[in-house]
Amino acid sequence: MADMNEKLPKAVDLSHHLSEISKSRQPSPLKNLARYFGKPGILSLAGGMPSPAYFPLSTLSAETLVADSFSLAPPAKDDSGLSWFWKLFSSSKKERTEHLSIPKYADPDSSEAISLDVALQYGTAQGLVPLQKFMREFTERVYQPQYSDFTTFVHAGNTDAWGKAFQTLCNPGEMFLTEEWTYPSAMASAKPYGIRPVAIKIDNEGMRSDDLRKVLSEWDEEARGAKRPHVMYTVPVGQNPTGATMGATRKKEIYNICVEFDTIIVEDDPYYFLQEGPYVPRDIRSSASSSKSKDEISDYIASLAPSYLKFDYQGRVIRLDSFSKTIAPGSRLGWFTCNERFSERLERQGETSTQAPCGFGQSVITQLLTKQWGFEGYIRWLKGLRSEYSRRRDFFLDELLSLFDVRSVYMAQGTWAGCTAFVARPRPHSGRAINNAVSEKQDFPFGDKPLFSFVAPTSGMFVWIKIHFENLPSFSAPEDKTTMEVRLWEKIADAGVLIGPGWIFAATEDVPQEAEGHFRIAFSHAEHDTMKKALKVFHDQLLDFFGYQ
Amino acid sequence: MADMNEKLPKAVDLSHHLSEISKSRQPSPLKNLARYFGKPGILSLAGGMPSPAYFPLSTLSAETLVADSFSLAPPAKDDSGLSWFWKLFSSSKKERTEHLSIPKYADPDSSEAISLDVALQYGTAQGLVPLQKFMREFTERVYQPQYSDFTTFVHAGNTDAWGKAFQTLCNPGEMFLTEEWTYPSAMASAKPYGIRPVAIKIDNEGMRSDDLRKVLSEWDEEARGAKRPHVMYTVPVGQNPTGATMGATRKKEIYNICVEFDTIIVEDDPYYFLQEGPYVPRDIRSSASSSKSKDEISDYIASLAPSYLKFDYQGRVIRLDSFSKTIAPGSRLGWFTCNERFSERLERQGETSTQAPCGFGQSVITQLLTKQWGFEGYIRWLKGLRSEYSRRRDFFLDELLSLFDVRSVYMAQGTWAGCTAFVARPRPHSGRAINNAVSEKQDFPFGDKPLFSFVAPTSGMFVWIKIHFENLPSFSAPEDKTTMEVRLWEKIADAGVLIGPGWIFAATEDVPQEAEGHFRIAFSHAEHDTMKKALKVFHDQLLDFFGYQ
Repeated sequence: MADMNEKLPKAVDLSHHLSEISKSRQPSPLKNLARYFGKPGILSLAGGMPSPAYFPLSTLSAETLVADSFSLAPPAKDDSGLSWFWKLFSSSKKERTEHLSIPKYADPDSSEAISLDVALQYGTAQGLVPLQKFMREFTERVYQPQYSDFTTFVHAGNTDAWGKAFQTLCNPGEMFLTEEWTYPSAMASAKPYGIRPVAIKIDNEGMRSDDLRKVLSEWDEEARGAKRPHVMYTVPVGQNPTGATMGATRKKEIYNICVEFDTIIVEDDPYYFLQEGPYVPRDIRSSASSSKSKDEISDYIASLAPSYLKFDYQGRVIRLDSFSKTIAPGSRLGWFTCNERFSERLERQGETSTQAPCGFGQSVITQLLTKQWGFEGYIRWLKGLRSEYSRRRDFFLDELLSLFDVRSVYMAQGTWAGCTAFVARPRPHSGRAINNAVSEKQDFPFGDKPLFSFVAPTSGMFVWIKIHFENLPSFSAPEDKTTMEVRLWEKIADAGVLIGPGWIFAATEDVPQEAEGHFRIAFSHAEHDTMKKALKVFHDQLLDFFGYQ
Repeated sequence: MADMNEKLPKAVDLSHHLSEISKSRQPSPLKNLARYFGKPGILSLAGGMPSPAYFPLSTLSAETLVADSFSLAPPAKDDSGLSWFWKLFSSSKKERTEHLSIPKYADPDSSEAISLDVALQYGTAQGLVPLQKFMREFTERVYQPQYSDFTTFVHAGNTDAWGKAFQTLCNPGEMFLTEEWTYPSAMASAKPYGIRPVAIKIDNEGMRSDDLRKVLSEWDEEARGAKRPHVMYTVPVGQNPTGATMGATRKKEIYNICVEFDTIIVEDDPYYFLQEGPYVPRDIRSSASSSKSKDEISDYIASLAPSYLKFDYQGRVIRLDSFSKTIAPGSRLGWFTCNERFSERLERQGETSTQAPCGFGQSVITQLLTKQWGFEGYIRWLKGLRSEYSRRRDFFLDELLSLFDVRSVYMAQGTWAGCTAFVARPRPHSGRAINNAVSEKQDFPFGDKPLFSFVAPTSGMFVWIKIHFENLPSFSAPEDKTTMEVRLWEKIADAGVLIGPGWIFAATEDVPQEAEGHFRIAFSHAEHDTMKKALKVFHDQLLDFFGYQ
C-alpha cells in the first residue's frame, strides 16, 4: 500500500475554489504555539478542561453484535416470507454479542487504548487517534484515492459535513450542480446563504453526463444570474430519493468533465455499503444463483461501484462517509476524505462550531471497529448488512409484484431510456368490491393503461415510484400533477400509511415538469408484517383513486 | 410552579431581530404534513431510516458515579495538601458507582423509557423526550424565567449554539456587544460571516453597565461603519478568561439597558455551577466557617448568582446551557432556553446542520439524569462539584500565596477599582541562586514594585493574572506589552509549563492598550503535584524574566 502510494501524484492546488467566508476563517491563535502542545513531560495549566475525575462514569460498556451476525447466503426460495424476520425479532436472546468496555483511564503502556478520560475530554476536530488510523486505512483500501496526500478526519454526520463543504467552497449567490431529484435537507441548508442548486437530468445511473456537459458548456452567466457552478453535490449510490446507482464508466465521464470545467465534487455517499445488486423476481429467482458468496475482501471491494475517489488524481473530490447507515443514525459521526487545502479549512470550521463529535459515540464506535471487529470484521459486518438489505428489497418488491399485474418493459425513451422498468397495472378482479355482474370494462376503467412504474433499485433504501396521473381521465395538464400527488399522498396517509411525497425531493421549483407524480417508499425500516399491510393499503387506495370499485 | 407560571406574561414579539439568513430558512416541507407523524397505528414507509435490528448494540451500559460522590464539607485545614487528591486518584476502586443500562428495545408499557432503537435512530432536533422534560423542569426550578411561554431544546455544545444564535440574529456587517476579554472561539466563529465584536469594558463583576450604556447611547453609525448592535454575547459567571462573576444587581442593570436599547442577550453560561464563593487565604481560613452546608435545594439555588433568565420578562435572553463542565466536554450536549420565535428558527437550523445531538451521549446522560440521579440527585452532584472546584481554587491560590509575597490591596482605580486584589512581589531570598554576599538591592532589583496582581475568582476554572511589565526597567511603552507577553509566555513554556497567553482573549485588536500583560491559568484540570510543580516553574521563570538572580 505504501509503495503504491509513493507512485501516486500529489493533489493539485485547488485553493482558488475557497469561498470568502472560508478564507477569512482564522487559524486558532494557539496554532502558532502548537509546538508546545503534547510535548512529553510538559505541565499544562492552559486549557479550560475539567478534571476527568469529575466525569461521572467509571466505565462505558456495551453488548455489541458479532461481525458475522447476518448470514451472507440468500434465503431459500420459500424463506422469503416471515421466517427470516421471525429469526431476527422473535427473540433478542438469539443475537450473538460480545462485551465491549471502555475504562476511564487507559493502561499507560498501550498507545492504542481508548479511554474515557480522553474520549470525553475536549478533543480535536480530527477525532480519536485510533479512529483516525482506522478511517485512513479503510479509505485507502476500500476507496483507493489516486493521489498520495489525501486527508481523512471526522465530522458530525453528512448533513453537517455538506454544510461545512458548501460554506468552504461557495460564496453567496453562487450555484452548485446536483441531481434534479435530491436530498431536501442538502438544499434547505444551502438556500438561506443564497447558494442555489442547478438541476441536472438523471437516468437510472443518476446524474447524466451529457446533461452535465450541456449545462456547463452552455452556461449563460447573465441569463442565470450566477457564474458557472464550480461545485457539485451528488449522491452517487442508492441515490436519495431515486435509488439510482452510478457505475464506474459514468463516474469517470463525470469526473473528466469536472476536470475540464474545474468543478469540485462533493460525494455524499451514505448508502455506499447497501449495494444490493440486481433484483430478480421471486418466481424466476434461483436460490443458488448468488449463493456462492465471495469470501475474499478484495473480491468484495471489487464488487462495489467505485467511489469518485478511485478516479480522483487531482484532489477535487470531497467524499462524505457516514456511520448512520452502517452503525446507527444516532452516531452523528462520519468522515471527510479530501485534499489538504480543503481539509485545513474544514477543520478550522469544525473547531469553531461542532468541535469534536460526541465522545460517547466516538469511543464506543472506535472500540467496536478497532478492537472488537477490526478491518476484516467490519467488512464482514458490511457484507452481512448488504445481504439483509437485499432480502428486504426483494421482499418488498416481491410483495409489490404480487399485488399488481407487473410486467418488465424495456424503456425506449424518458428518464429510464435504455433500461428495464417495471410497469404496474391492476390485477383483474383486484378491486375491493366486485359486483356480481362485473364487466371487463369495470375492472379496467382506463383500459390497459399503467398505474405506476419503477426501476428496481440496486442499492440503498428506497423505491422511487412514478404514478401515471396522465392516465386519469380527469387529468388535463402536467400542472395538475402536484395537486394530484398531494391528494393521493393524503388519501394514503388518511388510510394509515406514510410514504415519501415526491415533490419535497425536487432540487428546484422547475423540476417537476412531467405528468407523472412520484413517491419514495422506504424498505429499510418497517418489519415484514408492516410492509405487507402498508402495501395492501397503498394498493387499495391507489385503485380507489384511479376509480376502480 | 404551574400556578406561578400562569401569572407570568407571554414573551413580547422580538422577531424583528431575525437575520435575513434566518428568515429565509425554510421549514421542512414535511412540517405541513406533520399531523400524520406519530399518529397512533400509522404505518410508515416514509423515512430513510435503518431498522434498529441493524444497530450493532444490544445494550449500552455504564458504571456511573453516585450523586453524592463528592463531599460538601470543606477539607480540614491541614487537609488541603495531597490527601484529598490522594483519596480521589489513588484507587479508582473507591469510587462508588451504580450500574446504568439502556436496552435496545424498551418495555412498551413505559412511556418514559429510554431505548437504543429510539436514541440511536434519526431523531428530532429537540432531543429525547425524557431529556426535554428534564431540561424544562430544571430551567423552571433553577433559572426561573419571568415569562410563561419559553422553550428549551437541545444543542451540540455552547460553541455550536452560539454559532446558531448569531446566524439567527445577525446579518453580515453587524456588530455585537461583548466583554473586552472573552472566549476566542466565539469571536473566531462569527468573524468569517463579517459579524464583529464591540468590546465593552469589564471590572470584577464582568461587563460594566456604565460602559455598555455609553457605547449604546453614543453609537455613531457612520464612524463605526455599522448600525447600533442589537445582540450581546456574554459569559456572566466565571467568565472566560477573567473569572469574573456578575451578581443580581448588575445583571438587572444590564437587562434594563438591553430593554431600553432593544438588545438581545446571548448568555453563554457553562461555568454556572462552578460558583466557588469568596477565597479566604489558608492562614485565616476557618475550617468551620462554611462547614454547615445548606442542605435545602431552594437554599442552594438561592445561593447562586441568578441567570439573566430570572430578569427576563420579555423573552430577550437566549441562554446556552452545557453539560461540558457538569458531565463531560465530550458530551457535546447542552440546551437553549429562549422564546418561541427564536427557538423555531434555531430548531430549523439544527435540522439542516447538526440534526439531533449524538444518541450515545444523549441516552447515557438522559438515563443518568432522569433514572439514576433525578433532579435532586443532579443538584447534589452539582453541589459536590462546586465543593471540589472550591478546593482546587483554594489549593491553587494557597500555593501561589506561599511562593510569592502576596498582599491584599483595596484598589482605588483601574479595572478592579472598588475591590480587593492580590498583589504579588518576590519573597526575600526567593531568587534561584543567592550569592553569599547578597544585598537588599540584589534581592529587590526594582525595589518594592509588584510582579503581578489578580483578583481571586469566585467562580469558574481560571485565575486571570496581570503581569506588571511596566515595572521592568527596559519597558518603554504599552506597545511593548504584547512582545513582552509572548516572550515571557515562551520562556515559561520552554521551561515546561503551558499557561493561557493573554493576547488570544482580546475581543478586538484595540483591547490590549494597558501596560500590563495577562495570563489565564486554569486550576480545573491539573493534579495537585502538577499544579505545585508548574507554579514553582512559573515563579522561577517570572523572577528570572524580571532580572532576579
